[in-house]
Amino acid sequence: MNLILLFPEDFIEDTNRVRLQGRRRTHICEVHRAQVGDELCVGILSGRIGFGRVTQRDPSWLEMEVRFEQAPPPKLPLTLILALPRPKVLKRVLRSASSLGVQRIILLNSFRVEKSFWQSPVLSSESLQEQLIIGLEQARDTVLPEVLLRPLFKPFVEDELPGLIKGAFSLVAHPLASDPCPRDIKQPMVLAIGPEGGFITYEIDNFISCGFMPVQFGKRILSVETAVPALVSKLF
Amino acid sequence: MNLILLFPEDFIEDTNRVRLQGRRRTHICEVHRAQVGDELCVGILSGRIGFGRVTQRDPSWLEMEVRFEQAPPPKLPLTLILALPRPKVLKRVLRSASSLGVQRIILLNSFRVEKSFWQSPVLSSESLQEQLIIGLEQARDTVLPEVLLRPLFKPFVEDELPGLIKGAFSLVAHPLASDPCPRDIKQPMVLAIGPEGGFITYEIDNFISCGFMPVQFGKRILSVETAVPALVSKLF
Repeated sequence: MNLILLFPEDFIEDTNRVRLQGRRRTHICEVHRAQVGDELCVGILSGRIGFGRVTQRDPSWLEMEVRFEQAPPPKLPLTLILALPRPKVLKRVLRSASSLGVQRIILLNSFRVEKSFWQSPVLSSESLQEQLIIGLEQARDTVLPEVLLRPLFKPFVEDELPGLIKGAFSLVAHPLASDPCPRDIKQPMVLAIGPEGGFITYEIDNFISCGFMPVQFGKRILSVETAVPALVSKLF
Repeated sequence: MNLILLFPEDFIEDTNRVRLQGRRRTHICEVHRAQVGDELCVGILSGRIGFGRVTQRDPSWLEMEVRFEQAPPPKLPLTLILALPRPKVLKRVLRSASSLGVQRIILLNSFRVEKSFWQSPVLSSESLQEQLIIGLEQARDTVLPEVLLRPLFKPFVEDELPGLIKGAFSLVAHPLASDPCPRDIKQPMVLAIGPEGGFITYEIDNFISCGFMPVQFGKRILSVETAVPALVSKLF
């Protein structure tokens, strides 16, 4: 937790003081080992970042006086379309994508996605938000990425995707593509990454008809957890 | 497991047949659901890759007839120096670095590394190899990265590091550096990444005296799991 993320309800009435309990208090006391008077990096959800000075410590809560000084780091103009990974991997991918500054994450069904993954409690909005917040706290950001769940491939690709990719450079990772992944793109992008085993031909063809360029990322097949930071970092 | 990694002891006498038990048999039968006659990608440790055709299945073992056709993908000419991460993270980082094709991984002590991490069973050679093999199986590679454990910072940096970096472009990740990370370097490299909280000034100064260039990777602080694929992919 390189930044303590604050929410409007943490504030004591109309003051610049916050009272924290639970996970954040424990982390501040036990990992940062912060004493009264110490300053920590804080940020307000969707807003500015700054510092919080610990003013009171109690076994169950902690108070800080906060001031906000600067904007959070800019988001990457990137929409990441991911074939829904298995729940344990999804949690790590959400944290990583959130810390990298991805603006929007679309979790999509694909032929090779196990149906049971869509029943996972990790997909509840509370659980998604929890993982995204861990990513923001890691990277010192305050702005949550948008997450969309799309459990039906065809209606998404046919009805929604054409609008989503307007004005963006759109790539789909495909091991059999002939073009290598471009680098250092400084424009809005949409990047689609398939499941373990890849998108099937029908799915790749749908992306291509929609305007996506298929690109390959070398001979090595990477797990989605490794592929997401590797590809995002190559593109931006 | 995109490649079944084979070892000399898997071969039945002087034949081109292998007999597999345990984890690999289970994976072939339950994940690939391979039947007699099916072909799977295989590779021989430190050697070539090719195909294995399932010839016999038994509840406790499986036989394949194998042929090797091509060289494994080339390694990245990269030595990664990592302040030893906590054991759970280390396992994931080893898998990821191995799948990315990193040639050598040096796990180094640093002021901010918890002493207890050095006692972890993950550092046994069997356990290290297990994680590296998972990375090779993911990426379809057969050549294990070299892993060195260096639990003493000073003797390593003073006595061993100058020899290791000869002829290589050497970078140390440092959030306060003014130079951004270079991109698309196609030459031998050494990259040092600090622990959570970063290398301390004394350590950074030691790397700089040795010939390392301090570089920063943007405003976002990434976890080592995300930083490794992101930085490796930016450099190569």
